[in-house]
Amino acid sequence: MKVYIEPIGKLINEFSKLPGVGAKTAQRFAYKVVNMTEEEAKEFSDAILNVKKNVHYCKICGNFSERDICDICAERSAETICVVKEPKDVIAIEKLNEFNGVYHVLHGTISPLDGIGPNDIDIKGLLKRINEGNVKEIIMATNPDVEGEATAMYIGNLIKPLGIKVTRLAHGIPIGTDLEYADEVTLARAFVDRKTL
Amino acid sequence: MKVYIEPIGKLINEFSKLPGVGAKTAQRFAYKVVNMTEEEAKEFSDAILNVKKNVHYCKICGNFSERDICDICAERSAETICVVKEPKDVIAIEKLNEFNGVYHVLHGTISPLDGIGPNDIDIKGLLKRINEGNVKEIIMATNPDVEGEATAMYIGNLIKPLGIKVTRLAHGIPIGTDLEYADEVTLARAFVDRKTL
Repeated sequence: MKVYIEPIGKLINEFSKLPGVGAKTAQRFAYKVVNMTEEEAKEFSDAILNVKKNVHYCKICGNFSERDICDICAERSAETICVVKEPKDVIAIEKLNEFNGVYHVLHGTISPLDGIGPNDIDIKGLLKRINEGNVKEIIMATNPDVEGEATAMYIGNLIKPLGIKVTRLAHGIPIGTDLEYADEVTLARAFVDRKTL
Repeated sequence: MKVYIEPIGKLINEFSKLPGVGAKTAQRFAYKVVNMTEEEAKEFSDAILNVKKNVHYCKICGNFSERDICDICAERSAETICVVKEPKDVIAIEKLNEFNGVYHVLHGTISPLDGIGPNDIDIKGLLKRINEGNVKEIIMATNPDVEGEATAMYIGNLIKPLGIKVTRLAHGIPIGTDLEYADEVTLARAFVDRKTL
């Protein structure tokens, strides 16, 4: 006989589709739901449906939005555009409370090995914004990995001829770590990018 | 302004109610749902509702069941009853494919500090089954912690006068570990419970 009764087995199966969730964790989650009140379970299940129903992409920047245009694009000056790979990168930067410009979400990075070329990510939208608006600086904030670097280079080369300043987030040794624990690539990069005090 | 748009913030909040899920993990889960197809999200949300709707407790043993009587109680001989704290303990034992008897789920253990006395867990149901059925052995499989031991003792003392064999799962050094890493209580217990070869 099967170990789980069907509704619990089904829910465990659904939970184990979440990233990093194995059989044991999925089981714990499912039992948690079994022990929820009817209302709590309803709220949980509604939250899942609502995300699918009410989350769209901003028509300007491609970030998640409840409306056609996201709050950031609606409220802020578009002189500085920070280009990121995914919506969650926007969240990470917004949490800093440091950046007051707008974003552009590429929804991917150029990765020839995965068959993702420049036309598969939203570079066209970025160029359109530059052509139509009064953009002064593009900050390339793609990840510091091979694909992110390649994408930053590619977009930088497209935009620089238009006379717009293109910058890249600084790479170097993370604050609070020991030199000896920094990986070689990062350390080498920190040397190359050293700043005058 | 708030960092997350409302539907995503709400879902992150729901996910962070799950055991062991912090803000970062809840965010990853929520993004996973955002990237699901409409159908996948529907299935996920239905699975949560169905668990609340279709999971009941077996009227005999107290384990989760879709019907009034669970499959285990319906199919197996009730001569040996394995007494456990929670439904998930049944799963753990069922996975072994070793035990062919039935279960009794107490839904808790005696814990005076938390205000849980013998009347707050399902001991009455167990005694009723013993009185009405042809029970030959009760295996006390509560956890080897203070509450579990106390509960096993308490129930054992109630049942032994009825002339029924009461056993307790063996304690000792886990298979595959080094002696030196076993905690003192476990090691001491392994000495006391040593077996003749």
